Amino acid sequence: MEKCTIIKVGGKIVEEEETLTALLAEFAKVDGNKVLTHGGGRSATKIAAQLGIETKMVDGRRITDAAMLDVVTMVYGGLVNKKIVARLQSMGMNAIGLTGADLSYMLSDKRPVKTVDYGFVGDVKQVDANALGRLIDAGAIPVLAPLTHDGKGNLLNTNADTIAGEAAKALATMYEVTLTYCFEKKGVMRDQEDENSVIPVITPALYEELKSDGIIVDGMIPKIDNAFAALAAGVKQVRITRADDLEGGTVIVNQ
Amino acid sequence: MEKCTIIKVGGKIVEEEETLTALLAEFAKVDGNKVLTHGGGRSATKIAAQLGIETKMVDGRRITDAAMLDVVTMVYGGLVNKKIVARLQSMGMNAIGLTGADLSYMLSDKRPVKTVDYGFVGDVKQVDANALGRLIDAGAIPVLAPLTHDGKGNLLNTNADTIAGEAAKALATMYEVTLTYCFEKKGVMRDQEDENSVIPVITPALYEELKSDGIIVDGMIPKIDNAFAALAAGVKQVRITRADDLEGGTVIVNQ
Repeated sequence: MEKCTIIKVGGKIVEEEETLTALLAEFAKVDGNKVLTHGGGRSATKIAAQLGIETKMVDGRRITDAAMLDVVTMVYGGLVNKKIVARLQSMGMNAIGLTGADLSYMLSDKRPVKTVDYGFVGDVKQVDANALGRLIDAGAIPVLAPLTHDGKGNLLNTNADTIAGEAAKALATMYEVTLTYCFEKKGVMRDQEDENSVIPVITPALYEELKSDGIIVDGMIPKIDNAFAALAAGVKQVRITRADDLEGGTVIVNQ
Repeated sequence: MEKCTIIKVGGKIVEEEETLTALLAEFAKVDGNKVLTHGGGRSATKIAAQLGIETKMVDGRRITDAAMLDVVTMVYGGLVNKKIVARLQSMGMNAIGLTGADLSYMLSDKRPVKTVDYGFVGDVKQVDANALGRLIDAGAIPVLAPLTHDGKGNLLNTNADTIAGEAAKALATMYEVTLTYCFEKKGVMRDQEDENSVIPVITPALYEELKSDGIIVDGMIPKIDNAFAALAAGVKQVRITRADDLEGGTVIVNQ
């Protein structure tokens, strides 16, 4: 099985010239098949404000009414995505920007209204790994915007972490997949104050130990739980690292 | 050689719900391989105004400074393009939205400054027919936004008629291409007041006759000259018609 690396970076990194340039230089070094997934929330909030559209968040999630859906379609699918694609092309990487509607590679359902109506937000229900695989096998580098579609003509705003995870799980049927999540720290650390305390590898046994010792706490727990869920679904390894060190950080494996 | 139809529609048609729905229904009826190319100028002007960015035109061409480039990247590459893609997918057509940067299928040079500085506007210099051909042969329907790139990391605003013409010429090496330009009339007419006077076929000999008889005048002359240039470059036929009648109108052929 060939390898394929799926890298997810947040909006902050791709929206600022300096960090974007650093990321793309790191991304260029990643060998073999690769996929980039990006956010863009800060730009969406900024453009929305300039258009007089108020951004409403509940528990860190954007409420996407019809006007906000137009904004995220413009910003994620157009501005952020196509700028990255043009930059990658200039570096000799054959990028292609995609939303879930393109080739219908990622289909979702509009999130049902429970206590909160998130609006035009998608919960992924189906990924066409072959649609991505054909592009990858032809040497292309998919650049995935955080948008899916419902198959009924509507785009849906979809969390970029979810896009990365779902793409990784689907591609795991065709490739040996590494799923890399970039965040602001160098990796999972033994000591939050010590940048040199990155834990290089976390196995299920070590994870239990680190949790009971109180070393892994709070927001890191759902991140690692999600990583193990991806591994359980066939992803070979999950990496948690900083965008300037895509081959470093912490690798999470099943054994 | 397989057939391939490339249809260009202006912004007005794809930006309004009613005309978009009618267009897509007509587009669905077109047999075989097909490509859709769209504009989006009205939406760009509207969004730019909402963002406090003034639209400047010279001879009907948009001046594209850095702020306007962001607007057209958002509107053409994101809002207009992805909405069309999602709609086509809902109708069972396997659309994929592209700018020239995607797969680097269309490369251009920033237009040199002569009497007018058009800003970030591209003059097409190279089309990768294979990049489009591979998608088409896999059953996909490319939806082309009026944006290209310079290979140095910059997107460039590019006239949608030019995108359609250049794509058609490049694809003519692989397919028997029909290039269809939609405009507001039913076709090239003998009598501008009579909708039933559409000329079904124009050959070079008939074109000379119609010009000398004063039947083809003004703005229709460059349109038909462009059509003959496309035919000279290998396109099989050029059609000029209304968006609600994609198989009708006037067909321009070389013999």
